[in-house]
Amino acid sequence: MGAVIDGCPPGIQLSNDDISIWTDRRRPGQSDVTTSRQESDIPEIISGVHGGYTLGTPIAIIIKNKDQRPKDYNPLLNNFRPSHADYCYYKKYKYMDWRGGGRASARETVGRVVAGAVAFKVLEKLAPNIRTSVYTKAVGNIVFSGEPKIYDRFDIYHYENELRCPEEKTSMDMRHLIEKAKESGDSFGAVLEFVIDGVPVGLGEPVFDKITATIAKVIMSIPATKGIEFGNGFDAARKKGSDNNDKFILKDGEIRTDSNNSGGIIGGITNGEMIYGRVAFKPLSTIARNQMTVNIYGEKICISGKEGRHDPCVASRATAIVECSLAIVLLDHVMRNYGALCVNNDFSKYNINRMPEKK
Amino acid sequence: MGAVIDGCPPGIQLSNDDISIWTDRRRPGQSDVTTSRQESDIPEIISGVHGGYTLGTPIAIIIKNKDQRPKDYNPLLNNFRPSHADYCYYKKYKYMDWRGGGRASARETVGRVVAGAVAFKVLEKLAPNIRTSVYTKAVGNIVFSGEPKIYDRFDIYHYENELRCPEEKTSMDMRHLIEKAKESGDSFGAVLEFVIDGVPVGLGEPVFDKITATIAKVIMSIPATKGIEFGNGFDAARKKGSDNNDKFILKDGEIRTDSNNSGGIIGGITNGEMIYGRVAFKPLSTIARNQMTVNIYGEKICISGKEGRHDPCVASRATAIVECSLAIVLLDHVMRNYGALCVNNDFSKYNINRMPEKK
Amino acid sequence: MGAVIDGCPPGIQLSNDDISIWTDRRRPGQSDVTTSRQESDIPEIISGVHGGYTLGTPIAIIIKNKDQRPKDYNPLLNNFRPSHADYCYYKKYKYMDWRGGGRASARETVGRVVAGAVAFKVLEKLAPNIRTSVYTKAVGNIVFSGEPKIYDRFDIYHYENELRCPEEKTSMDMRHLIEKAKESGDSFGAVLEFVIDGVPVGLGEPVFDKITATIAKVIMSIPATKGIEFGNGFDAARKKGSDNNDKFILKDGEIRTDSNNSGGIIGGITNGEMIYGRVAFKPLSTIARNQMTVNIYGEKICISGKEGRHDPCVASRATAIVECSLAIVLLDHVMRNYGALCVNNDFSKYNINRMPEKK
Amino acid sequence: MGAVIDGCPPGIQLSNDDISIWTDRRRPGQSDVTTSRQESDIPEIISGVHGGYTLGTPIAIIIKNKDQRPKDYNPLLNNFRPSHADYCYYKKYKYMDWRGGGRASARETVGRVVAGAVAFKVLEKLAPNIRTSVYTKAVGNIVFSGEPKIYDRFDIYHYENELRCPEEKTSMDMRHLIEKAKESGDSFGAVLEFVIDGVPVGLGEPVFDKITATIAKVIMSIPATKGIEFGNGFDAARKKGSDNNDKFILKDGEIRTDSNNSGGIIGGITNGEMIYGRVAFKPLSTIARNQMTVNIYGEKICISGKEGRHDPCVASRATAIVECSLAIVLLDHVMRNYGALCVNNDFSKYNINRMPEKK
Repeated sequence: MGAVIDGCPPGIQLSNDDISIWTDRRRPGQSDVTTSRQESDIPEIISGVHGGYTLGTPIAIIIKNKDQRPKDYNPLLNNFRPSHADYCYYKKYKYMDWRGGGRASARETVGRVVAGAVAFKVLEKLAPNIRTSVYTKAVGNIVFSGEPKIYDRFDIYHYENELRCPEEKTSMDMRHLIEKAKESGDSFGAVLEFVIDGVPVGLGEPVFDKITATIAKVIMSIPATKGIEFGNGFDAARKKGSDNNDKFILKDGEIRTDSNNSGGIIGGITNGEMIYGRVAFKPLSTIARNQMTVNIYGEKICISGKEGRHDPCVASRATAIVECSLAIVLLDHVMRNYGALCVNNDFSKYNINRMPEKK
Repeated sequence: MGAVIDGCPPGIQLSNDDISIWTDRRRPGQSDVTTSRQESDIPEIISGVHGGYTLGTPIAIIIKNKDQRPKDYNPLLNNFRPSHADYCYYKKYKYMDWRGGGRASARETVGRVVAGAVAFKVLEKLAPNIRTSVYTKAVGNIVFSGEPKIYDRFDIYHYENELRCPEEKTSMDMRHLIEKAKESGDSFGAVLEFVIDGVPVGLGEPVFDKITATIAKVIMSIPATKGIEFGNGFDAARKKGSDNNDKFILKDGEIRTDSNNSGGIIGGITNGEMIYGRVAFKPLSTIARNQMTVNIYGEKICISGKEGRHDPCVASRATAIVECSLAIVLLDHVMRNYGALCVNNDFSKYNINRMPEKK
Repeated sequence: MGAVIDGCPPGIQLSNDDISIWTDRRRPGQSDVTTSRQESDIPEIISGVHGGYTLGTPIAIIIKNKDQRPKDYNPLLNNFRPSHADYCYYKKYKYMDWRGGGRASARETVGRVVAGAVAFKVLEKLAPNIRTSVYTKAVGNIVFSGEPKIYDRFDIYHYENELRCPEEKTSMDMRHLIEKAKESGDSFGAVLEFVIDGVPVGLGEPVFDKITATIAKVIMSIPATKGIEFGNGFDAARKKGSDNNDKFILKDGEIRTDSNNSGGIIGGITNGEMIYGRVAFKPLSTIARNQMTVNIYGEKICISGKEGRHDPCVASRATAIVECSLAIVLLDHVMRNYGALCVNNDFSKYNINRMPEKK
Repeated sequence: MGAVIDGCPPGIQLSNDDISIWTDRRRPGQSDVTTSRQESDIPEIISGVHGGYTLGTPIAIIIKNKDQRPKDYNPLLNNFRPSHADYCYYKKYKYMDWRGGGRASARETVGRVVAGAVAFKVLEKLAPNIRTSVYTKAVGNIVFSGEPKIYDRFDIYHYENELRCPEEKTSMDMRHLIEKAKESGDSFGAVLEFVIDGVPVGLGEPVFDKITATIAKVIMSIPATKGIEFGNGFDAARKKGSDNNDKFILKDGEIRTDSNNSGGIIGGITNGEMIYGRVAFKPLSTIARNQMTVNIYGEKICISGKEGRHDPCVASRATAIVECSLAIVLLDHVMRNYGALCVNNDFSKYNINRMPEKK
């Protein structure tokens, strides 16, 4: 696996460690609730960085998968796993790599995490006020009751907290639920919540590249996603305009809103308030139970996924994937507005939420 | 308003009527529950069609807005309407056209409807099995209980059925709810359901241009959208893998699934089953009530939207907008797989859901 | 005809006259050496501008062709004119509009001129040092001996100077040559020279979007172009490195070169020197002479183009088309480097050719 | 170095040898007239191919450079080589990798060769009639007098024929000229000719993506290119229409032309005749002679390139680079017209140059 990142501005400090801090957050193999594959996931920058700084040239980063055991997947050969994309790929392309490394595998998401890690480094320099949090909002019927806000990254990603919920008690409850499912060879879906603050007013392009649209596209291309909503989302659909509208107020000399049902985005353009929303992930389809299905000859068969090594809950890995994906989209919007060479600009001078002068 | 459509294959029959049938479905001004603007919305093809057939050259279509009364919006000048994108646009661009025709206005969606009308004509020829339905699933707490399926277009779009729910009784209930809201100067959000069937297996590109991603991008760029979900969507997040998986079965000699929680898409690629999902729309922000807000000088003021002419429910117009947007995305995927000159191809020969031969 | 320009920054002064000054420079019908069609070419801005300033929203500009006489082209119906793209279009698309308004017609270049006129207005504000000249370098064997440099636009475009050579005597010689060709129903090719100065160092992207590549793409998409070269161009291919290299020198405290064989571009990136090069145009294929050809049934026939109204020399119109195309490419590169909202930036602060500080 | 190729159809046979046959043709180090770097250039396919066939997933190919000696370039540190892009890159990005591996290095062209090698394999299957030739037309004043046509690849690329001219005698003359230049520490430019036949009528898109435009873009992004022309190119500019036009004739029941000044392309669309043209390369700027220049502090200095290992003539490597670049563009146009999954199509059924039926 790897990633090639083109268009990264020059002069950004970047090391292998800046990447691995994020790939570690996504890495499986840490515990019981993630797959037992011992992927090393050691990222190595092979071009585009010199003397510790980006050059403005394409950055290639490779991640070697030391524990790849393709024969583990052999039993699946010729059989279509229920709700797995193998079938679609077979019909589309005819030629298939039946091992675990294909395009439909969640392995490709490591590329998104690598690119996001670089994007975070650039954002730190260009838009240092931007902060992000992604955490598990719900697993099964266990729902985290905390408000959408920026939580401490340590609380979400620390080694023991495999379910990525910032509240320890809820996270443990989720873990127990997962472990029980695992025992019966099953998996669980999850809802993740994402939060971004410190965003300047005006990110997002009218008509097609609204920031809701660009975020939705990237998130809905992550394997196993089933839905996305912004602000109060589907709840807004049940409301009256007078209840749902966020009134503008003046606060500390700046125009703000007194509520944030909009989730920081109106008409696809950021309004300077906190962006937030939620993503639905289905339970992973590859489970360690016997399931009836058909093979490529249309014959009815029974398969078991126990030989494959798969996660019983998507939440453990998906938080880092979603967070890194958001960083990529945010940086694209920032650079679209403020230039590809913006590292030379004094970004602080852009007025963010400042009141216009009286005429 | 208008649209320029590039890349349309040659040899497709296309008339002004093919366009107006769709712009009529979106058109406001028909009744009490849509705005009282009498937009004529008469589309006129001005290039790219000769002798009734597309030429393969860009198609330009213009829609003249005969009843534009910009001074209606004057009272809003310099005032930021709650939850309206005016504020974001002002901060982003500084220069503003304060009348109703700006980029944030839902007026631009007529361009999507025009392009979708053309896409439908091309799909009819290239992929005649594809059918679509978009209808109102819920307004406020009134929920249409029908299953996701292809409904008769007449039932959805007929003149009297302004709320676009295919069941007359539910549609009338929704209408009464809206009328009551309108009396008190208020608006309502809505959930729309979309359904697509007859789609070949294999549409959607791996990694970034998954069909979930491309549909999500287009839909989430429609004004007032707050969320989108596919198949069982956010419900999937609460489920176990063993409950959620759609088992493959053999049916009439074809590989099919025995349930459709996936909504016809696995791993971002169509599996030949019916695609379906839902879109959340917020209540429109411009309402005919007094609301507190600030003006561009940051001064606290009270505004009323009564002079503006706006819809009390987004559902009346949004069904056609969503349906046409889907047609655009579908056609893009079809042409990406089967070629830009596919009109010369005998599309029927592509195997759709056919079983592979025994080797 | 028309153009839709997306991504233009807000706050740029723009009027119909800013457009028509350029469409006039391209306009046929002024004299004997251009076609006798009396195209009015009055551009009308229909969106994206309010109160004389661009809004940041898409700008639509329409040009109505008042003197379109499609039946003039009827005699050509079903006949393939030698070296005319009708044949290729017929084979590609099957469906054809046999009149003069198709995609292969040079009429479409008015769209490029309109877009270029807008680009010039933006460049004036963002990069006021950039100046351009495009003029006729050669017609037949008559070659303008002047050095590549910025010439006075009046000398090139004034009403009497139809051949667009900045030196009156040479321009008249070219005109006489053309008139003689016209008498015998013939046409002539031309070489145009383009010059750009005041360009900052560093425009152009590595690898694929080098400024040579982006200019070449736009220019080689103009109808009737046969070749393009930069700096000393094809002559460089005959030279030794020691003769061809431009040595760096220090001049007025800035790093400059003592010669300019590179034409202001090294490795696809501008070096701050004057950009220049040449474009070859073939003689227009539609001529007023009898020519043997075949029709769509493969039958041998003789056609005469006298009923069509066409230019005997491409130079009269092509200078404005090339100049406007260059403006579009330049602005794209400037905005790519300095941001889409760069109107808020104080562009003057970007260091252009300034010497780095001693460390 | 490496390349990632996305969008390659599935089911194409592809091995490391299919790649290395082309990288060998580009490889330096074979003889006196190319650089003495012993680059191994062994390509290795690391993804996207399984069991010898492409999967439809992205193909990553890596080429390790075993003989990289960065300290060879040290003397150049801080000095701007005349006509070398180092200066532009330094000004654009500030951060520089002063060794030989940067973006401005011709090393990146190995990526184009790798991608072109894959494109050739796909073209073989989709459009087996397409054949290409690229060869040296001129070095200094030595001009190959052969007509543009498809020459035997062995005659161009065989080990002894380092100057890539298909005629042995001329190739040796060119070689002697180069060797003399090399003795005096100098380099030479070259003109290459490219030829493509077997192309169906109708490749190329109207307006912007004319095939002249797309080829020009790719070729003019190759390092050291100074110009490109199609068919009779700059000569066409001196001609009359009646001399330049290619008359349509009927030949063996097909519509053909009796001359080919157009170089197989009219209005940017292929007409079924042989495509041909020429590319100008400047002499490489890094030479083994003393040259005056300035360093990054603006100080006048004298440099010698003798420590760097560089080619005295670009022709030896550039032929393979140009030929592979053409394959990429051709395949893009073929797939744009005939679909991304065209491997399932029976391409032979597309009518190429066939006469339309009498109506």
